[in-house]
Order: sequence, then C-alpha cells, then structure tokens
Amino acid sequence: MVDVQSFNDERNIPLEKVGVKNLRYPVTVLDKAHGEQHTVATVNLFANLPHHYKGTHMSRFIEVFNDHYTDIQMPTFLTMLEEVRVALEAETAYGEVRFPYFLEKAAPVSGQKGMMSYSCWFVGERGVHAKRFVVGIEVPVTTLCPCSKEISSRGAHNQRGYVRVQLQLGPFFWIEDIIEIVEAAASSGLYTLLKREDERFVTEQAYDRPVFVEDLVRDVCVSIEDLGYFPWFSVEAENMESIHNHDAYAYVERGVKAWQSSE
Amino acid sequence: MVDVQSFNDERNIPLEKVGVKNLRYPVTVLDKAHGEQHTVATVNLFANLPHHYKGTHMSRFIEVFNDHYTDIQMPTFLTMLEEVRVALEAETAYGEVRFPYFLEKAAPVSGQKGMMSYSCWFVGERGVHAKRFVVGIEVPVTTLCPCSKEISSRGAHNQRGYVRVQLQLGPFFWIEDIIEIVEAAASSGLYTLLKREDERFVTEQAYDRPVFVEDLVRDVCVSIEDLGYFPWFSVEAENMESIHNHDAYAYVERGVKAWQSSE
Amino acid sequence: MVDVQSFNDERNIPLEKVGVKNLRYPVTVLDKAHGEQHTVATVNLFANLPHHYKGTHMSRFIEVFNDHYTDIQMPTFLTMLEEVRVALEAETAYGEVRFPYFLEKAAPVSGQKGMMSYSCWFVGERGVHAKRFVVGIEVPVTTLCPCSKEISSRGAHNQRGYVRVQLQLGPFFWIEDIIEIVEAAASSGLYTLLKREDERFVTEQAYDRPVFVEDLVRDVCVSIEDLGYFPWFSVEAENMESIHNHDAYAYVERGVKAWQSSE
Amino acid sequence: MVDVQSFNDERNIPLEKVGVKNLRYPVTVLDKAHGEQHTVATVNLFANLPHHYKGTHMSRFIEVFNDHYTDIQMPTFLTMLEEVRVALEAETAYGEVRFPYFLEKAAPVSGQKGMMSYSCWFVGERGVHAKRFVVGIEVPVTTLCPCSKEISSRGAHNQRGYVRVQLQLGPFFWIEDIIEIVEAAASSGLYTLLKREDERFVTEQAYDRPVFVEDLVRDVCVSIEDLGYFPWFSVEAENMESIHNHDAYAYVERGVKAWQSSE
Repeated sequence: MVDVQSFNDERNIPLEKVGVKNLRYPVTVLDKAHGEQHTVATVNLFANLPHHYKGTHMSRFIEVFNDHYTDIQMPTFLTMLEEVRVALEAETAYGEVRFPYFLEKAAPVSGQKGMMSYSCWFVGERGVHAKRFVVGIEVPVTTLCPCSKEISSRGAHNQRGYVRVQLQLGPFFWIEDIIEIVEAAASSGLYTLLKREDERFVTEQAYDRPVFVEDLVRDVCVSIEDLGYFPWFSVEAENMESIHNHDAYAYVERGVKAWQSSE
Repeated sequence: MVDVQSFNDERNIPLEKVGVKNLRYPVTVLDKAHGEQHTVATVNLFANLPHHYKGTHMSRFIEVFNDHYTDIQMPTFLTMLEEVRVALEAETAYGEVRFPYFLEKAAPVSGQKGMMSYSCWFVGERGVHAKRFVVGIEVPVTTLCPCSKEISSRGAHNQRGYVRVQLQLGPFFWIEDIIEIVEAAASSGLYTLLKREDERFVTEQAYDRPVFVEDLVRDVCVSIEDLGYFPWFSVEAENMESIHNHDAYAYVERGVKAWQSSE
Repeated sequence: MVDVQSFNDERNIPLEKVGVKNLRYPVTVLDKAHGEQHTVATVNLFANLPHHYKGTHMSRFIEVFNDHYTDIQMPTFLTMLEEVRVALEAETAYGEVRFPYFLEKAAPVSGQKGMMSYSCWFVGERGVHAKRFVVGIEVPVTTLCPCSKEISSRGAHNQRGYVRVQLQLGPFFWIEDIIEIVEAAASSGLYTLLKREDERFVTEQAYDRPVFVEDLVRDVCVSIEDLGYFPWFSVEAENMESIHNHDAYAYVERGVKAWQSSE
Repeated sequence: MVDVQSFNDERNIPLEKVGVKNLRYPVTVLDKAHGEQHTVATVNLFANLPHHYKGTHMSRFIEVFNDHYTDIQMPTFLTMLEEVRVALEAETAYGEVRFPYFLEKAAPVSGQKGMMSYSCWFVGERGVHAKRFVVGIEVPVTTLCPCSKEISSRGAHNQRGYVRVQLQLGPFFWIEDIIEIVEAAASSGLYTLLKREDERFVTEQAYDRPVFVEDLVRDVCVSIEDLGYFPWFSVEAENMESIHNHDAYAYVERGVKAWQSSE
C-alpha cells in the first residue's frame, strides 16, 4: 500500500505541531504515600513536521505511549517524548498529560478521612539536544474576602477558588509539597469529609485568614521561591465569587521558560 | 433520487424520538422590560418515528425552526412544534430550546447597573390532541450555611449556588417573577456590579439570612404555590460548597407532568 | 454543638432528594479480563428528607462511600445504598457513579493493541423493601450514511457517533457484551491504534455497512432482546454529523423502570 | 469605608494580570450583511497590578465594559481597553471576548437557507504607548482522509473538523473572508440545512477533495498570506476522527505577536 503521508509536499510550509489530541488512557503515576497511584489521563502528543512531508504517522504516537502508560513520572515522561521524536523522525516532540491525582486527607479536628482530588498535568518538549518540562497542579481552596470582612459589621463573603501552579523543573518536589504551600496561603484548604467540629474549625480559620486572589498568588509565589530556584513558574488564582456570577482572577509569573540541555 | 428514509422497515420497532440535536441559532425571545430580547439558543427537535419508516427527514426540522427563530415565546413554541409534527408526518413532536436571558439589575445601595445572565429553557411536546410545556429558569444565588453560622464564634461559610425551577404552564408569569422568588428565598441575590457600600449590604444580608439547600427549595416551593396552580413543578438547588470540592444538592417536585388538551 | 440539621421543620414539605453531587473519587470496578480495574468516578449520592427535618447530614454520604470505593460492582452498589439509607434515616437512597471503563482492543488486521475508553454509569435506588438498578454504557462508533451512499456516485459521508445503552438489571451480562452488540450494529467499531491495513479494513467495512442513527438503535434493541428479558432498557444514538455542525439523534426504550423486591 | 484594595503591599510582587473572568454579557458586533448582529459573549478583563497595591478594583472593569457592550468592534475594543487601563491606574489592560457569530448560508444546490454559527474571539492588550490585537475565528468543516481514500477500494473515512485561525491585525478583512478561505481549503464546508441534492453534492465534493489536517492548515496559511501582511497569525485544525475516539491535530504559525504603536 502507498504511504500517502510520506509523499513530497511542495507548499514549503513546515508545521510546528502535528499529532493526536484528547486521547483517554488509564495511567499509573508516582505517589508519595503508596509508591504508585492508578488514575485516568487525557493525553496530547505532537511532533513538528518538516516542510517536505505531506503528513505525519498518527499511529506511531499511540504505539510509543502504549509502551509507557503504566509508568508516567516527571523524568520518564521526557524519555517517552524522545521515543516519539525518533519514531516520527522529527526535530521536536511535545506531550501533555492531564490527570486527577488523589490524596487521602484527614479532617482538621475529627481526623476523619476522605479522598481529595487535584487536577495535575505534565507538559514536555524534547528536541535533539534540548528539553523543557512543566508540571501543573490545581488546588481547590476557600477564600474569604478581606474587603468584605473589613467593611461589614458581621460575616464576610467567601467561596471556593482554584489555584493553578505551573513549574519548570528545578529542585526536587512532590505534588504534595505544592498542595501544602497553596493550602497554607489560602483562607482554608478544602476537605471531602468534615464533621461539625471540623466545620467550625474551617469556618473560623477562614474568617481569621482573609485573602484576595492577589494575596493568594503573591503568598504562593514567595513560598515557591523558598523551595529553591525554578527557571520559570506561574501562579494563578480564580475565585467562583459567592456574590457575583463571574470569577475573580489573578496571575503572576517569574522567570523564562527556557530550553535546558538534554544531555 | 431515491428517498432511502422512506423505505419500508421490517424490524417492527417504532422509535420514541428521532431528530436534530445541539443546533446553535440566534433567537429573539419576549422581554418584560423591552418587549423583545436577542439571545443565542441551543436547540433540540425530535419527532417519533413509526415502525414502518426506515428514517426521518432531518432537514425538515431545520426548515420549520428557521421560520420561527425570530419569535420564540411560550405559546408560539407549541405552534412551531405542531408544524414540526405535521412536516414529519409524526404523532408527536418534541422540542427543547436553551438560552441565556439577560436582565439589567441595579446594585442594592449604589443603584449602579450591570447585566445579569440567567439560563432558561423551554421543553415542549405536541401530540395530535395533547400538549405539554415546561419552562425552566436557573438563578445563581448566594447561600450562607445556617449550621456553620450557628456553631462558629465568627463568620460562616457561604458560596455561589444555582437554583433551577421548572414549571408546567399554569397561571401567566414572567421569567422575572421566578427570578424574584428565588432571590428572595436565598441568603442574597447575585449582582454583576457591586460598589463597596453594596458589598457590605449583601455580606450582612447573607449573614442575616442563612439557608441550607433544603431551605431554599422549600421556600421557593411555597412561593410558587402562592402564584397559583401549576400541574407540575420542580425546584432544585446546588451549592458549589466553599469548604468542599463537591456540591450540596436538594430537589423537590409537586404534581404530575400531565398531558393537556391542545384544542 | 447544636445539630441545626435536626431542627424541626414546619413548612411540611418532604424532599425527594438531598445529598452530595460531583464528588470525584478513585474507584475499583469489576473487569472481565483482569478481575478488577482501577479508574476514576464522579459520584452523586442522595436520600429523601422527611418533612419534619430541617436538613440532611451531608458528611454521612461520604463516610459510607469511603467504605466502598475500592469495590464498585453492580450487586454491591445497592448494598452501599442500603447503608446510605440507614445512615441517613431515610426511606430511599439514590446513587449515581460515572466512570471511564478501559478495554485493550486489537486492530482488526494487524492485531496491534491500544486501550479504548467507554463511559459507563450505575444508577441505583434503594427503598426499605424495593430497589431499582440501571447500568449505562456509551460506545463510540463509526456511522456511514445510507442515503449519502445511495444518492452519490462516489463516497458517502460518515462520522463518529455515540451509542448509549441503559439497562435495568435482568440476565447477567458483562459491559464487554454490550460493547460488542453496539459495535456489531454500527458501520464500524472505533480503535485507538490502526495501521494502514487496518484503516483500509475499517474504511471498506463502514462503506459496506451503512446505518442511520435509526438503524443503529433498532439493531441494538433487537440484540438486547436476544440477551434475555430486561424489565426496562433504552438505546440512543447521536451522530456528530460530518456535513452539519449539529448532531443527528435517535432514541428508543422498552418496558417500564419498575421497582423490584429487595428481599 | 476603608479601601482595603488600596492598602500598601510589602511583598514587592507586581502581578501580570488581575481582573474578572467568565462574565456573560449580551453584545452587538459588526455584521457584513446587516450592519450589526446581536449575540452573547463570555468576557475576561484584566489589568496589571503594581507591586505596591494590595488589590485591584474589580467593579471598575464592569463599569467600563457596561458602557461598550452594544458596540463591540475590532478597533473600538482597544479603545475600551484603554478606558480599563486608565480606570484601573494600570500600565497594561487585557481583554478577551468570545461569541458565536451567525451567518445565513444557502445550500449549494437547492439554495435553501439556514443559520450557521462560528465561534469568534477578540484578544486585545493596551499599554501606555503600545497595543496588540488578535482576532480568532473557528470554522467547522468536513475533512476526508487522503490516505483512507487512496488505500481503500471503496469509500473513505471523513468527519467533522474544526479550523481555528488567529490573526494579529494587518490589512482590513471581514470574518466572512476568513470563513470563505477555510471552507475552500476543506473537503467541504458545513451547512445547517441540506436537501438530498445538496447532500449528494457535498458527499461527492468531499470525496474529490481529500485533505489531511496538515493540508488544511497549509492551504489556509497560503491563502492568508495572499490577503496581505499580518505581523502574526496561526492556523490549527482538529479532526473528530470518525475511526478513532481521539482527535487528529495540526498547528502552524507565522511571524511574531509584536507590540504596535498605539499613537
């Protein structure tokens, strides 16, 4: 059978990214407490396409990923992308994998346990001699409005918010470390299971620790810089405002997402 | 050209619904304040298919709807469905149209104005001699937890919640009337634009009017019964809990979604 | 601390459903090939609320589910709901759990393997003496239009479609059996990994087996009746039409979703 | 009342973006055929926050947008952002507005008309002396696989795909011009209403014009360069593959999203 994809292309237009998107796959990821964790991912895999090829070979992306899905880790993800790059005869391979990460979490007073879910993602790029790798973690939190507390004689509006941290790899860290940093910066962390004594605790804690989205991203920024040097990172916070039908948003980034040597 | 859809089908299986789904269309709906309002709808249109036909004629649904999209009202929606029914040579036609409905709303103290968006939907069924018609309205609100307020020495968790009311037509009402009922039952209504004096007002009002999702659906239920007799209605409330990453939910319904004479 | 939820309520309105919604949890489900499978679920758990209680106790739903998430099976799901019912002192407990189910699937000619994802859900209701249980399975397929093939001198439009089967429990079956029935009724099943010889095979197979959404739901209906007696089942098909920006839809159901004795 | 947002902040961290997100608003946009068009938008508005301010003033974003929503055009959008920048005492204001844009479209043979919906967006940035403005347009199309056609003895898999074009302003163009370019590069454009003679036409046309996602982005790229000089533009195509449950994807960009003088 002819290989139409390998036909010569005369339009002289190289493509930045070609590949497969929105692939659903079971994956196994590293877990600080239990060694490994089974979860489910949405996966995008791309490679560049030189100007002289008409098309890419989509099935090869799946073949490579199918060899790796039972062991998705920060370091091995780039190894997988290098195999994609070679299989596609490309200069650069790109990959994104998004998955919920689960932690058992104890309520603050009763100690009762439930599973909490945190959205995470890895984004990697692998060139012949260079690489870039970003880890993303979304942490749901409570935020209580400092303005509302200050100007009101009683109460203060509060709401569920989401903080998204993205880090280009620097010093070693666990997903759990970032979650801890974000929850410490928020009015309160969230819990799946709270008994009445816990509900009182988180209510009062939130009232005592009011934060704007602006405060949240700044405090997380300071704590990440305390972890060590990351070439690039960003922090964004988004509040599902309890008094509006739209969201409040803040974003900060530091550094430059630079290529690193892959040697 | 042959009409494959009209071929005889020998499997002897009549189908409840066949048609088009997720059609995006601009629509014009009735507006209490300005006579009419331009918005955008997602539309589903179905008819039953007798056992002896192989397929329906999908283009006819579009032809009929295209004659009516500039005038979508509660009464004329059933007229449109009767045309669908006749065009498809069916016993029953079904239709669903969902759209955001906008209201200009003044902040409670400053009086400053902004547009608020409410999701609405019409669901109609039209048989040869019978009809059913349901209107749905989703109202975003603030809810402040009575338990959290009672057991805590300061503050109380609160959040954005959504109340969905569905009514089978009975006495005349405006979408605005239902929104008013729901906001009166909540800890506070939501606003797009709030200045500081407004924020204090809604913060204190919410603290003074704590409601569970259970309270909310019960109070809305009582107010709807005060409007007059509806053959069937339902009320559901869903809180995006500020202390959990899941939602709190309550649902109540009254009556039976009965067919009414279309004469 | 006072138990506000247990306060007496004087509005005299019993509620159909109160509980927790959109809970994300890791779950373990039965797997025909490997005994068990790890996946991720979205969970809703409700109970009715008698008119004299002000509120339900949301944390108890989580406590019960947290005892069962590592073993979610069709029969044990109702046992879990019975525990919810008792924990909430309710007459009826309801539960919904939705999860992707993964199968390794070989390409039709090359035999190369990849994982396919199928959305599944369990919906259960448990009263004091009665129960209802429905299993749902969504199968993505290729559909090729019989009309387009018949009237055109070359080619035929085809597209990805989704078939959703829901069954009230009757004779024993595996999720895999339903997937097989749906794929046999479609123009072709879908695959994650296809080499060129496979792509030729599925292209020609689809061209040789054209089906409308109407054909698809009817053929699946016939095959389910061949499996044995189910008190109720429904089949719906939705085509992401390649020639339209909306979907084509068909729905059929058989029987009545009746309560069964839970003795 | 105290203005908490204006408090001095000592963390010394300036923020890139602070503001409101996911605001739903009715908007009026320019329309080539009728002068103007009513539609519905999702709006994000941000400004940078200097390091010495604790917070931004969220209500001011709404106040400015509320003065402009009845006239959203490419040039006036930057004027609106300049007002945001001034109102927030910021160096830079950012804005994103997304809306469905509707066109009446005639079927290719019968000439029957229906409304087609195209997702569009404006993204603008306004600094003291500089500006950037990008227009985005998503066009749904049919794509027929050249490989499948070539290797199969009959038929060819085809599917609905989405092409997203983003352009930094250069020569004047209408949204309609970009839609025309994309549909000409696809196997076929999509239609809301097709009679049988139209269905034959689009089926045969698609079979005669097979394109990979790679071909699609390249051909659109060539046509955009023929329109004149744009400082930056990108084209991406995403196929909802009819033979897979994942998507095929291609992306190309040209130029650099440079700041332009706002004088």
